[in-house]
Amino acid sequence: ADMPPKPVRLGLCAACHGEKGMAQIPGAPNLAGQRADYLRKALKDYRDGSRNVPLMRAAIGPVSDADLDQLVRWYSAQTPQPQAAAQP
Amino acid sequence: ADMPPKPVRLGLCAACHGEKGMAQIPGAPNLAGQRADYLRKALKDYRDGSRNVPLMRAAIGPVSDADLDQLVRWYSAQTPQPQAAAQP
Repeated sequence: ADMPPKPVRLGLCAACHGEKGMAQIPGAPNLAGQRADYLRKALKDYRDGSRNVPLMRAAIGPVSDADLDQLVRWYSAQTPQPQAAAQP
Repeated sequence: ADMPPKPVRLGLCAACHGEKGMAQIPGAPNLAGQRADYLRKALKDYRDGSRNVPLMRAAIGPVSDADLDQLVRWYSAQTPQPQAAAQP
């Protein structure tokens, strides 16, 4: 499978979710290999505020549908990586 | 790593998220290997309505913290499986 192009807006997302979708900080979910339909709805819900998470709403800002779709395709195409087992 | 015991309430969750956390229907996210802290917060937010998804709120009902924790440990301990590549 072809890897989608790296999204223009990946940098801010990657700070918490990792460039390849493995979370970098507590509380942030892994996104690698997540279903595209779920990611797309989540991002739209953050954008319009129906999923009311201030940090995500601020981070996503006025993202265009095209940019949003790039992020969805990028993260859903990544392969989840093994993580340290112990988590709270 | 030891696999946690199968949660008492796994059946209803599994209908959409799969027994091992790979989504069975469009719109449902994969949960396999998701971070425990994220899953715990998501379930509590569904339970108290602060994450307002009627289906999830109905499905989760008045789950106890202990049952909720079983589900968190079960799904976060699963290994994500490869999926069909083509998704909408």
